[in-house]
Amino acid sequence: MSIPPSHPRYQSLRMREKIAEGVTRGIVHPTGLIAHGRGEAYDYLLGEQTISPAAKAERAAAARMVNASHPVISVNGNTAVLASEACVELADATNAALEVNLFHRSEERIQKIVGLLEEHGASQVLGMDADARIPGLDHDRGQCSSEGIARADVVLVPLEDGDRCQALRAMDKTVIAVDLNPLSRTAQAASVTIVDNVVRALPAIARYARQGAAMEPWDNHACLQECRAAMCRLLRLSDEPEEEPYPGGQPG
Amino acid sequence: MSIPPSHPRYQSLRMREKIAEGVTRGIVHPTGLIAHGRGEAYDYLLGEQTISPAAKAERAAAARMVNASHPVISVNGNTAVLASEACVELADATNAALEVNLFHRSEERIQKIVGLLEEHGASQVLGMDADARIPGLDHDRGQCSSEGIARADVVLVPLEDGDRCQALRAMDKTVIAVDLNPLSRTAQAASVTIVDNVVRALPAIARYARQGAAMEPWDNHACLQECRAAMCRLLRLSDEPEEEPYPGGQPG
Repeated sequence: MSIPPSHPRYQSLRMREKIAEGVTRGIVHPTGLIAHGRGEAYDYLLGEQTISPAAKAERAAAARMVNASHPVISVNGNTAVLASEACVELADATNAALEVNLFHRSEERIQKIVGLLEEHGASQVLGMDADARIPGLDHDRGQCSSEGIARADVVLVPLEDGDRCQALRAMDKTVIAVDLNPLSRTAQAASVTIVDNVVRALPAIARYARQGAAMEPWDNHACLQECRAAMCRLLRLSDEPEEEPYPGGQPG
Repeated sequence: MSIPPSHPRYQSLRMREKIAEGVTRGIVHPTGLIAHGRGEAYDYLLGEQTISPAAKAERAAAARMVNASHPVISVNGNTAVLASEACVELADATNAALEVNLFHRSEERIQKIVGLLEEHGASQVLGMDADARIPGLDHDRGQCSSEGIARADVVLVPLEDGDRCQALRAMDKTVIAVDLNPLSRTAQAASVTIVDNVVRALPAIARYARQGAAMEPWDNHACLQECRAAMCRLLRLSDEPEEEPYPGGQPG
């Protein structure tokens, strides 16, 4: 499909295409397309930018990953298709392991995602061996790697399911979630919730990690409140006449 | 997959199933899954119901369709899969023509959508012959039927692209858009924007049409303001501790 670069929503449409191609390539599960759409909607209410509370969360995330004994980045289809390079860069910046871990587990998809990460310079990507369990989840959904998520003290989970997020918290792990929806169960359940797009969040965390991020107390609930308030401001900003709050025009 | 009607997310999950089946059947374009996800997010912020300003817009839409000389309902893949019966019913209630008109045009998909509408009782569905143009759009995106959209005075466009919406307005047509996102270019550009889910909106317009809807002045800008305010109220409601604003639980 050729989207004319003249289309005001070119960037956003390109990301959509990548996700759609990801399905064709057997990397993204079809429900991942729907999840991407939901993310688009919420991203739009953020002005498609890293808002201030999200930047603070990214800094808090960097501190936790840098100070972890065994940090792990959990990668799924959507994340791989949108941000493989950023995943590898972040793993490097924080000495974190990469583990491919899917809600809809399939050996074939895991293999493809591992391949995609390796194309971007990753090595020793975990996930093919799911030899450990996350307690409290249905068998299908609770598999993970003993070398990775199972023994992690800090897990970064972009685009995660609420049940799994809660289950990881129940294992006493520090869970850093990237979720554009500040109302989701994942957002509520995580230790640190970054209300931002993965394509912005992961590079940001890497930058803070390299700059040296110090551990500070973190109030996730307060952060989420600020994010919701920011979304409201964007919603109401359109009440101003002749206001053009969105660079690049409104989404189609 | 069999979802029990008692499942708290039954309606939402059934719609997702239909859309996903639509992709398999070659009726819904994969980007339609993404669009559906966006709709889910906004619908969630509406409380998955027809809010008062949307009901007013549905009444205004009915009046315009009933008083039109040549009303046309533009149908795409998502709309057909979610609401074919409602499209046919609305066409009947308003003496409107049905035209299958797609952002991602393909003869095969048009044929399937025509078939789906005919399964629900439609006849003389337009769209196979795209023998007219909507000026101002790239060739691919600007095709329509001379018998339908080209000569319509009022066009109902559920789930439309912003460019095309603006182009139809430029042809001096009355454009009624159904769009769950009150900030989209489509929403801003349309004559009447119904911020509601198509599965609720189309039957509602048909009901108002049959009841006899009188023409009244319509302030679309004010309506959109009310819709955005309603979404804000839902977003801020989560600031209340232990509030459970969403019947049936949070979406996954």
